[in-house]
Amino acid sequence: MYLTQSLHRALQHEPQRIATIFGDRVRTVAESADRIARLGGALRALGVRPGDRVAYLGLNSDRYHEYLFAVPWIGAAVNPVNIRWSPDEIAYSLTDSGTRVLFVDDAFAGVLDAVRARFDGLSTVVFTGEADTPPGALRYEDLIADTEPVPDTRTGGAELLGVFYTGGTTGHPKGVMLSHDNLVGSAMGTLSTGYVVSHGGRVLHAAPMFHLAAIGMWSIGNLAGATHAFIPVFTPAGTLEAIGAHSITDALLVPTMIQMLVDDPTVHEHDLSSVTNFLYGASPISESVLQRARKVFPAAGFTQAYGMTELSPVATLLSPTDHDDPGLRRAAGRAAPHVEVRIVDPEGTEVPRGTVGEVAVHGDNVMLGYWGKPEATAEAVREGWMHTGDGGYMNDDGYVFIVDRLKDMIITGGENVYSAEVENALAKHPAVAACAVIGVPDERWGERVHAVVMLRAGSECTAAELTEHCRELIANYKVPRSVDFTDALPMSAAGKILKRALRQPYWEGVATEVS
Amino acid sequence: MYLTQSLHRALQHEPQRIATIFGDRVRTVAESADRIARLGGALRALGVRPGDRVAYLGLNSDRYHEYLFAVPWIGAAVNPVNIRWSPDEIAYSLTDSGTRVLFVDDAFAGVLDAVRARFDGLSTVVFTGEADTPPGALRYEDLIADTEPVPDTRTGGAELLGVFYTGGTTGHPKGVMLSHDNLVGSAMGTLSTGYVVSHGGRVLHAAPMFHLAAIGMWSIGNLAGATHAFIPVFTPAGTLEAIGAHSITDALLVPTMIQMLVDDPTVHEHDLSSVTNFLYGASPISESVLQRARKVFPAAGFTQAYGMTELSPVATLLSPTDHDDPGLRRAAGRAAPHVEVRIVDPEGTEVPRGTVGEVAVHGDNVMLGYWGKPEATAEAVREGWMHTGDGGYMNDDGYVFIVDRLKDMIITGGENVYSAEVENALAKHPAVAACAVIGVPDERWGERVHAVVMLRAGSECTAAELTEHCRELIANYKVPRSVDFTDALPMSAAGKILKRALRQPYWEGVATEVS
Repeated sequence: MYLTQSLHRALQHEPQRIATIFGDRVRTVAESADRIARLGGALRALGVRPGDRVAYLGLNSDRYHEYLFAVPWIGAAVNPVNIRWSPDEIAYSLTDSGTRVLFVDDAFAGVLDAVRARFDGLSTVVFTGEADTPPGALRYEDLIADTEPVPDTRTGGAELLGVFYTGGTTGHPKGVMLSHDNLVGSAMGTLSTGYVVSHGGRVLHAAPMFHLAAIGMWSIGNLAGATHAFIPVFTPAGTLEAIGAHSITDALLVPTMIQMLVDDPTVHEHDLSSVTNFLYGASPISESVLQRARKVFPAAGFTQAYGMTELSPVATLLSPTDHDDPGLRRAAGRAAPHVEVRIVDPEGTEVPRGTVGEVAVHGDNVMLGYWGKPEATAEAVREGWMHTGDGGYMNDDGYVFIVDRLKDMIITGGENVYSAEVENALAKHPAVAACAVIGVPDERWGERVHAVVMLRAGSECTAAELTEHCRELIANYKVPRSVDFTDALPMSAAGKILKRALRQPYWEGVATEVS
Repeated sequence: MYLTQSLHRALQHEPQRIATIFGDRVRTVAESADRIARLGGALRALGVRPGDRVAYLGLNSDRYHEYLFAVPWIGAAVNPVNIRWSPDEIAYSLTDSGTRVLFVDDAFAGVLDAVRARFDGLSTVVFTGEADTPPGALRYEDLIADTEPVPDTRTGGAELLGVFYTGGTTGHPKGVMLSHDNLVGSAMGTLSTGYVVSHGGRVLHAAPMFHLAAIGMWSIGNLAGATHAFIPVFTPAGTLEAIGAHSITDALLVPTMIQMLVDDPTVHEHDLSSVTNFLYGASPISESVLQRARKVFPAAGFTQAYGMTELSPVATLLSPTDHDDPGLRRAAGRAAPHVEVRIVDPEGTEVPRGTVGEVAVHGDNVMLGYWGKPEATAEAVREGWMHTGDGGYMNDDGYVFIVDRLKDMIITGGENVYSAEVENALAKHPAVAACAVIGVPDERWGERVHAVVMLRAGSECTAAELTEHCRELIANYKVPRSVDFTDALPMSAAGKILKRALRQPYWEGVATEVS
C-alpha cells in the first residue's frame, strides 16, 4: 500500500471533483494533484531525499493536505508538529528526528526565532501563510508556481511515511515511526466496516491535523473519495458554520467538542442534517451528550475509535448500532477488521474475560518503532504485539473496556485503583460536569486517591457529599480521600485531560515520581 | 495481513455465530475454529512444514472452508485443484508444484488411481468423503478427532498463502503464487467499497471453490463476518433452493449462472428476497439478463468484478449504481480501492483515454509470481505492474472496457480485430442467444473473422442476415466472413467461453498456431 494511491485513483476517476475546501479557496482533484506534484518537485530541488523528514507547524488548511501528499510523493517522511508545544518542545522534536525542513504558517511564524535559537539544524523554512514572508523563509506559492511537476515515486509498503510525536504527557515526546502499510492499512480496515465514513462525502477537519487521529480520518477520506473541508481551529460556532455551509457528511471530533457543539447558542441556526457520521475518540461519550447530539444531528451515526499513534491509529471500533446498547456505552468497541486485540498480563499471556490487564494489539497497523529508541520499541512491541500501556478488560462478546492508562493507575495501600473507575462513579453525581482522579503522595498509603472536580454551572456540592456518593458505587479503598474543586481541567490538543499537569504540584520534590 | 486474522476476530466477537452450513451440517465459529486447529495439528503431524503445498480436489463443502484455514494456520500453502481437469492435468499441477499431500472427496476418489499412475510423489491422501476410504488414504474426520489443536503460526505478509493454477486455456497451466497480503489485500480493498457484500450476512458458495474468484469471495465474507453456505456444485434449482432455505444475502456467480437462475422453471417457488448483493465476473451481464434478474431478486445490487488469479483476484469493480447507466453496462468498472489501473502500449507507456491497449494493474494484490517460471513472471510483472494480457480502453471517468484477451485478437489483412467488438455487434441481433468470434486460417488474409453462434430457442436466422446486421454496426473488415451455428458453446469452469476449443479444429495441422 502507498498513501498516494488514492490520489491517483481520484485523479483517474473524478479529476473535476472538489478535493479541498478552505474558506473561499476551492480546488479540484486535478488542480490539487498538480500542485502536489509541483510541491514535491520543489522539495526535491531543495535537497529533500527519500527518507528525509519534513515538518509542518501550522493550523488546519488545504496546504496541510498538499504537504501530507507531496512529501511521500518524493519518498520523504512527514513530521507534523504539535501546535500546543512550546519552542523547547518543538526544537526537541526537530533535533530528535533530524528534521531540516519546516513548513510554518501565519499563526506560528512568530515562534520561528525561538525555535531557531534552540535548534540550528533548519536548512529550509517554507512559509505557507498570507502575511509577509519571515526572513530566510521561502514562499509556498512561489515554490509551486516556479517548479515543474515530478512523477510520483510510489514509495510505500514498509517504507517510512512519517514520524509522529506522541503527546508528551510524560517525559520527552517519542517519535512514532509509521510506514505506508501502517497508516493505509488502518484506514482501509476502518473503512471496510462500512459504518465509519460515507463514500464520496465531505469530511470536515476541525480537530488539529497534526494529531494522528486527524491524519487517520484524512486517510480514510482519501480512500472513500471524499472532499476535504478544513477550518483553521476548532471553535463551536466555526464548526457549525462549516457543516452548514459545506453540507458536511463526516467529521472526527472528541466528545468534549461534540458537547461544545450541542451546547452552542447558535446550534439551531444551521442546517446540520447533512452529517451522517461522527467519528470520535479519546474517551467514551456520555449518555447525555450522545442523546443531545442525536437530536441536533438527526442523520448522524456515532462511531467511537480507540487507538493510539503507535497503532496508526485505530485498534477498536464501537459502531453506531453498538451505541444503542446501554451496556456498551462505556466500551471502546471491538477489534477493527485489520487487528487482533487481547488483554494480557505482564508476561504477555491472555487473561480471562472480565479481568483487567493491558490492552495488546496485533496487525499491520503496529508502528515500525520509536525514532532512535530501540529499547523503548522492544518494550512496547513484543512478538508483533503492541503493548498499549492502557488497562482494560474484555467482555464475552469481545468488547474492550478501557479502565485507565496503566501509568495512571493508583496504588494505594497495595491495592490497584484504576482512575477511570473512580471517575465513572463521580460522573454519575448530578452536580459533576467533569472530573479527573489522580494518585497523590500519602505518607501512610504511598499514594491516595484524589479527585479534581468541575461542577455544573449553578450546582453546589461538597466533598463529603461526593465521597458519600462514591461509597455507594465502588469499594471503599477506591473512594477519593480528598477532593479539589476547579473551574477548568487542563486538556491536551487531543481532548484528553492532562493528568500530569494535575499531578505536578503534588509530586514536586517527592522522591518517587509517578512516571 | 494474514488470512487467519478474521477467524480470530470471529472467535472473539461471535463464537456462537454459525460459521458454515453444508446441507444438514451446521457449525458455529467456535466449533469450526476448533476443528481447524486440530486439522492443522494433524497436517503438521503428517510432516507438513511451513511453505509446503497441500492440494484439495473436491466439490464445495464446509471441509473446503476448514482446509483453506487449516493449511495457512500452520504456515503451509494451499493448492486448490481445478475440478474440470483430466488426470494428466491434475498430475501435472501436483508435479509442477511439488505437492505431496492431497485432500480428495467422494466425487474425485475415483481419479486417484489415475493420478497416482502419473505422479508418484503423493505421500499422503486425506479422504474428505462419506463413502469407504480409498486404499492408502487417511480419513478426514479421524484426523480431526485424534489430534489436539495447535496454535496458529499467524503466518502472513509476503509469505506464500497458496499456489493457484490458472485455467490452462493455452499450453500448460501456470501456478500463480499468492501471498497473504495479496489475497487479504484484495478482499479488504473490495470490501471497503461498501457495496460488494453485506456485513454479518450469509454468503452462498455455488461457483466452484477451487477458482480464485470463489476464494476471494470467501475471503471477503470472512472479513465481513459472514456465515458461509456451500452447495456441492452449481445447479439452478439447487442454488435457488439454498437461497430460500438459508436466507442467503450474498453470492458470487457468473452471468451465465444468473441467467440459468432466472430461466429456471422453479424460480418463483422460492423466497429470494433475502439476496442483497450479487458479485459476478468473467464477463459483463447482458441487458436482458440484468433486467430479469432485478425482478427475480428485488433487493439485490449487482456488482461486476474484473480481475484474474494473478491479481488475487480483483482489479476493477462496476458498482450497483454504475449498472443504472446504460453507457456502462459493457464496462468492467473502475480501479478498486487497493489498485491502480492503466491502459498501456507494448512499451508500458500509458495510452490516451479511449485508445485500446493492454490493461496493467499495480497494487498489493499483484501476485508474487508464477511457480518455477521466473521468466514468465518477469514478462508479466514489470516494475510492479501486472500486465494482464487483456485488451481494453479507459473512458474519461476511469471506467475500463475490456475488448478482448489480447491473445484472442484477430489479425486479418494487417488490421487488428478485437473479438469482443464483433461479438457485441452479433449479440445485438434479436435471434442471437450467445456467440464467440475467433480467428481461423485464411490463405488470403492470414486469419479471417469467424463467428460461432447459438440462436435463441425458436428463432431462425441465416449467416447472411447476421453479416448484414453486423455491417450496419462495425467496419467491414471486422464483419464475420463465415458463421457456424451451434447448440452449445464450450465453457470453462469460470464461465468463460473456451475459444481454444473452438479454434482447435481449424488450426490443426496449420504451421502458425494462434497461441
